[in-house]
Amino acid sequence: MMVPGFEAAVACAEIKKGRVRPDLALIYSRTPAAAAAVFTRNRVQAAPILINRERIVRGEGRAVLVNSGNANACTGPSGLNDARRLSQQTARLLSVPEKEVFLASTGVIGRRLPLSRMMRALPELVRNLSPGGLPAVAEAMMTTDTFPKIVHEEMDLGGKTVRITALAKGAGMIRPDMATMLCFVLTDLAIAPSLLQELLHRSVDRSFHRITIDGDTSTNDMVLVLANGRAENTPLNRFDDRGIRTFSRALDRLLLRLARMCVRDGEGATKEVTLIVQGAAAEAEARTLALTVAHSPLVKTALFGQDANWGRILAALGRAGVAFDPMKVDVFFDRVQVVKNGVGTGEKEELQAGAVLKKRAFTLRIDLHQGKASSRVYTCDLSLDYVRINAEYRT
Amino acid sequence: MMVPGFEAAVACAEIKKGRVRPDLALIYSRTPAAAAAVFTRNRVQAAPILINRERIVRGEGRAVLVNSGNANACTGPSGLNDARRLSQQTARLLSVPEKEVFLASTGVIGRRLPLSRMMRALPELVRNLSPGGLPAVAEAMMTTDTFPKIVHEEMDLGGKTVRITALAKGAGMIRPDMATMLCFVLTDLAIAPSLLQELLHRSVDRSFHRITIDGDTSTNDMVLVLANGRAENTPLNRFDDRGIRTFSRALDRLLLRLARMCVRDGEGATKEVTLIVQGAAAEAEARTLALTVAHSPLVKTALFGQDANWGRILAALGRAGVAFDPMKVDVFFDRVQVVKNGVGTGEKEELQAGAVLKKRAFTLRIDLHQGKASSRVYTCDLSLDYVRINAEYRT
Repeated sequence: MMVPGFEAAVACAEIKKGRVRPDLALIYSRTPAAAAAVFTRNRVQAAPILINRERIVRGEGRAVLVNSGNANACTGPSGLNDARRLSQQTARLLSVPEKEVFLASTGVIGRRLPLSRMMRALPELVRNLSPGGLPAVAEAMMTTDTFPKIVHEEMDLGGKTVRITALAKGAGMIRPDMATMLCFVLTDLAIAPSLLQELLHRSVDRSFHRITIDGDTSTNDMVLVLANGRAENTPLNRFDDRGIRTFSRALDRLLLRLARMCVRDGEGATKEVTLIVQGAAAEAEARTLALTVAHSPLVKTALFGQDANWGRILAALGRAGVAFDPMKVDVFFDRVQVVKNGVGTGEKEELQAGAVLKKRAFTLRIDLHQGKASSRVYTCDLSLDYVRINAEYRT
Repeated sequence: MMVPGFEAAVACAEIKKGRVRPDLALIYSRTPAAAAAVFTRNRVQAAPILINRERIVRGEGRAVLVNSGNANACTGPSGLNDARRLSQQTARLLSVPEKEVFLASTGVIGRRLPLSRMMRALPELVRNLSPGGLPAVAEAMMTTDTFPKIVHEEMDLGGKTVRITALAKGAGMIRPDMATMLCFVLTDLAIAPSLLQELLHRSVDRSFHRITIDGDTSTNDMVLVLANGRAENTPLNRFDDRGIRTFSRALDRLLLRLARMCVRDGEGATKEVTLIVQGAAAEAEARTLALTVAHSPLVKTALFGQDANWGRILAALGRAGVAFDPMKVDVFFDRVQVVKNGVGTGEKEELQAGAVLKKRAFTLRIDLHQGKASSRVYTCDLSLDYVRINAEYRT
């Protein structure tokens, strides 16, 4: 899990009062690194997101300060000020430009950060930086996550070894209160920032934008890549450079693995569902249909109940605002066809589908027979534990 | 609850095998009546809806045959055929034109109706028609409803008494599997069908289109009005006729009362929430914001947990796709202000709001301070029982 030139450390800042566990972490690049990021599209944006947006346009980064337990969202000008003071002090201690320090917060919305406890922990963080520190960061940024999420790949680029480590938190794509999903990608690739930004957008579109737990979105989401060039590969500068394809595929694989880990760790989830809508007239329509089914509380509770209740699937498709012929729809759970031409195939197939739904992971495939476009999303069920976790979260 | 000229009856047709309770009902107008209806917008439409759509354009109706226990949806050409045979036989027994018989089904999707049992029950239904039969119809069409929903008003129109009885089923605005919401309105008003249709659209927009349980929509929803003219009022023919306003307001009141009964009876609901978004730039935007908050699983589970978790409310507003300034948002639970200018007002107010949330019914008011438009919706929480009911519904 090590990438040359990157170091990390964690500390206990007791960000949630009385909770002593590592909740503050620092990632540091010993040399200047190209930086690219994708942020939440929510109109309500946390203080760290507002600051990062200004800084990312320069395409350079040296450090990321991340905390769990408090989202620093909906905290107004005071929250922005808290975030700025943390980044100033971090920059000073690391002797790097303040504009190259990024911030990430995750946790409860609407509470001020415990600034003095965090400021006191910063010197210790900087002192403890070490090349092997990343796995501890993946743990420190967990909130309701039940396991840390970190992945690594190495690849050969023109005779040079390039390494990528990516780490994420999120147990629910999208849970504003927990400020949801954070992901950091560290690589020693040499690449132009604008190209890195473009590749990141594409990869996120194929990974984190494909998963949904409950359809709610966060005020704090971000995916940040730092690429420090230590691999000494011929720098990637243009889209047709050899190596782009290799790196891009590796990035896709890593982000998709992390995204699927988030679904597996979805709040209260008992099922991992790969949902495919195919035979659509256009990809955007396929995606709208897939997300509507994935967000339907009735479909999700049926999945939890291990009930192959395909009527709810058809009804969800029907309210998605996409034109299709209900009399052409086929529905499959893994290989078991439960609907043919919009009508149930029979009791035998429903029984077989019931057996598929008893598994932890399966595929739900919907074929519209309208065209050739398709879309795939990853989701989970809506369980009693989801309600328990979210009804009791702050109490 | 009686309206001159209307009769009704119920029968046990054992539509769900082994369940002997009244599950088939007939409403009959002894004389020709003006008819108007609003149907589900879901693209997947049950057989009775497909048939009613053809018939309603004539603007006349004499009878409604309604069953619970089976939605006759996603049943293909066979299901359509079943529905046609039922309406043929009903028309024959009543000696009315078949095109003036409307059909309504509610229950499980994807199963064929038990046609022979239903056909056998029809003569008994016709025999038992009586002016006092409507309350029993409200019971016969219940599915997961816990109480029947029927309301009545009388008004004076130019010296004539006009009566309206309206009955509905629905425990969840919108639960495709239960085929959701049905509503029948019977009145002795004399009115032109096209005018009745227009007034119905307006009233539904102010009532049933304002409630949401879970955001899922049905394949079977319908609201049907029959107006037989027995009140002998001067027939209402134009929008500026005296009496339109009186009738329209009564219709609004009755449908809103029924709609709110549906929310109160929402599956697993423990809270009735009146959600107001005001200070918006346009009414459509206010409505989009209100519905996004009302559909947020995180907001709904917090309401269930009696947690004034306003961060989730702001995060839901932020993903609604509507432009607003987060720094201007105010949020109130009844009279307790928990957010001012996008920031929490403090712990004292959160405690007070906690007390509001302990009540069965309260108002959640959001002021954007962007303009003068507002919108109001009625919703409920997402409880453990909602998941239990819907995970176990078919098992």
